[in-house]
Amino acid sequence: MSATSFDFSRLLAKGVPEPAARFTGFPKFNFIGGHNDPVQIPVEGLSEAARSVLKREGSKLAMYNLAQGPQGYAALRDFVVDKVTKLRGITATRDDVLITSGSGQGIQLVNRLLLEPGDTVILEEFSYSGSISQARAMGANVIGAPLDSDGLVIDSLARILEDLKGKGKRPKYIYTIPTVQNPTGSILPLDRRHALIALAKKYGVPIFEDECYADLIWGEPAPPALYALAPEQVIHIGSFSKNLAPALRLGYAIAAWPVLSRMVACKADGGTGALDQMITAEYFSQHFGAHLGKLNATLHAKQTTLAEAMAREFGTAAEPWHPKGGIFQWFKLPDSVDVRKVLKPAADAGISFNAGPEWSCDPEAAKSHFRLCFALLSPQEIKDGVAALARVFYEQTGVPQRSANVENVRGRAS
Amino acid sequence: MSATSFDFSRLLAKGVPEPAARFTGFPKFNFIGGHNDPVQIPVEGLSEAARSVLKREGSKLAMYNLAQGPQGYAALRDFVVDKVTKLRGITATRDDVLITSGSGQGIQLVNRLLLEPGDTVILEEFSYSGSISQARAMGANVIGAPLDSDGLVIDSLARILEDLKGKGKRPKYIYTIPTVQNPTGSILPLDRRHALIALAKKYGVPIFEDECYADLIWGEPAPPALYALAPEQVIHIGSFSKNLAPALRLGYAIAAWPVLSRMVACKADGGTGALDQMITAEYFSQHFGAHLGKLNATLHAKQTTLAEAMAREFGTAAEPWHPKGGIFQWFKLPDSVDVRKVLKPAADAGISFNAGPEWSCDPEAAKSHFRLCFALLSPQEIKDGVAALARVFYEQTGVPQRSANVENVRGRAS
Repeated sequence: MSATSFDFSRLLAKGVPEPAARFTGFPKFNFIGGHNDPVQIPVEGLSEAARSVLKREGSKLAMYNLAQGPQGYAALRDFVVDKVTKLRGITATRDDVLITSGSGQGIQLVNRLLLEPGDTVILEEFSYSGSISQARAMGANVIGAPLDSDGLVIDSLARILEDLKGKGKRPKYIYTIPTVQNPTGSILPLDRRHALIALAKKYGVPIFEDECYADLIWGEPAPPALYALAPEQVIHIGSFSKNLAPALRLGYAIAAWPVLSRMVACKADGGTGALDQMITAEYFSQHFGAHLGKLNATLHAKQTTLAEAMAREFGTAAEPWHPKGGIFQWFKLPDSVDVRKVLKPAADAGISFNAGPEWSCDPEAAKSHFRLCFALLSPQEIKDGVAALARVFYEQTGVPQRSANVENVRGRAS
Repeated sequence: MSATSFDFSRLLAKGVPEPAARFTGFPKFNFIGGHNDPVQIPVEGLSEAARSVLKREGSKLAMYNLAQGPQGYAALRDFVVDKVTKLRGITATRDDVLITSGSGQGIQLVNRLLLEPGDTVILEEFSYSGSISQARAMGANVIGAPLDSDGLVIDSLARILEDLKGKGKRPKYIYTIPTVQNPTGSILPLDRRHALIALAKKYGVPIFEDECYADLIWGEPAPPALYALAPEQVIHIGSFSKNLAPALRLGYAIAAWPVLSRMVACKADGGTGALDQMITAEYFSQHFGAHLGKLNATLHAKQTTLAEAMAREFGTAAEPWHPKGGIFQWFKLPDSVDVRKVLKPAADAGISFNAGPEWSCDPEAAKSHFRLCFALLSPQEIKDGVAALARVFYEQTGVPQRSANVENVRGRAS
């Protein structure tokens, strides 16, 4: 064995990402990302599901894709069909479904299929950071369409499309999270869904519908999915990360075969993990409704805890958006505050949060926004974490001036 | 809902693969790919492992990567360390291991890290089709280094490297499958391992070592992995597809941190499926040795069945390579035979096999070769399948002239 080190750095391809840092564990108050409630993981149910499905079909593990082809485990596709039929108004068969390794892979496949450098795509002004960054990494020009408390503002979208048409540009897609929007938590009303589809048809632009949070709704059922209303022009994706567990890497895509068959061809991964697929299908085919009811009740209670803690600790300084479901809430501080300056001091205090600029097509436009995921922490941790966050914000920015109805004194608040 | 179809085809990016065909099931005699023996899937053991690991750690599923970071489930990395220490002579810790979604993802990550269009890579003249095609798809110039029954021919490799140096070209890597070579089944002797490493050092070329079959050995233990001999210059990958099940998507990479940290950064998939990881780690940490012993005995017996059937049905027309492990065997027919012409008639007769050209850096040089995977079919199916394959070959090419010691009569043989 030689002790001489070999220098790989001169062999690296252009554009390789910077090295990852060593993972050092979660912060004490982890408000970022899409983690879920550990208490709601149905450990017993998954264990029983593993036993029954392995007994019945375990020997199929010897074959790639369980000998059921690259679209995924048939029983999981059947469950997806059943779920989207009942909850999202979609008409589909298992042949219309592609199981993906997380909905993130669905986004990658759609981008691989459609995007070239210089293309234009329309996203919602505030949107999933992964969707924004990936479209940008592929060289696309990302345009943010305005949102209000009900989601996409149709008139504004119409102006964007008309303006692009005037420049001879046809966007490759309109990416939307219509049902529990990320990060604002809105649900697009039915009339806006029809209007959005009419615009997409008028301008010949596909709709890329991300419904990864659509099962997590607290109030009235949502209107049908956009795919249900225009299956020929919509690519629909969903996830099991939010309704079950994110460490599972399971999502799905539903699209017309001319699109789906290309996505299947691009999915060069030898299939999605079979035990994840089998155990999830077995469990959800029997217990989905009951699990979802409990999970949503828990999440709604946690969101209430978060909203109350934010009101208590930030007072009127933090303007909340009111989510209709999901696992996160979006807040805006006064324009004078740049949340990016607080990331490091917060991390030093054991607190992580998602800074608005990452979740915005125009980073500067969201410099005073931030997103808190409330699913992972316990109610007490949420309360303690928000109080700690308010202290760090006050120390760094002078906002909030009042916490828990007591005036903060800069430099002494902690 | 509109009945008008929307034409996605004009929106597709350049270079998108052709649409996938509908999956229509496996052929009766499936000799292709890397399927394993269904009888050897330890269904009871996996079920028990699922129960115990979910009870102990199931709630961690609520967190991305089980809250253990992007390198993968710690207990699975610990198992990998234990296995490669005992069987492959490697010194490593869990920090040196990246769990991948199949070893195919390991290949993708290494290529993403190192390859640009116009680069040169050296592979073995006959090699894994996925490695050849992926390097080509990334625009690399693929050079095949000669093999004999012990693997890479060192003198020939030295001439290739010297020749490239004369042209001012330094290959990005030497990709080798030294331990149960795919498709020839050879194991590179220790002296050649040292000579290969000396060449790699002399010319400043990394070695990319694929050991995905290294656990499946029937005779003497193999010499240490190349990584064990030169950890600073070797990127080592392995798989759980072969020693457990391919429907699981689990592999691993071991490399020095300057390389591994880049691979971690490129692995933008939100993690590898957690149930696949957890259940495999739990099962193998207790039962790996016993499982491997049974599996290898079964595979060796099936290879013997295949070799006997091939000798009986093809006689001297098929020249066998003699695998020292694994799940496949490589054969050569007379130079007059082009196996590609037999693929379609064989498929029509319910038989699939891997044509040599797919497994060769120079497709024409392997036009008379083919690869049969013997792991999936039962012994009787292997016998029947080889007899059926001989009939199709005779009908299409006139070879073999004798089967089961009876002279074939063209056009009447079936």
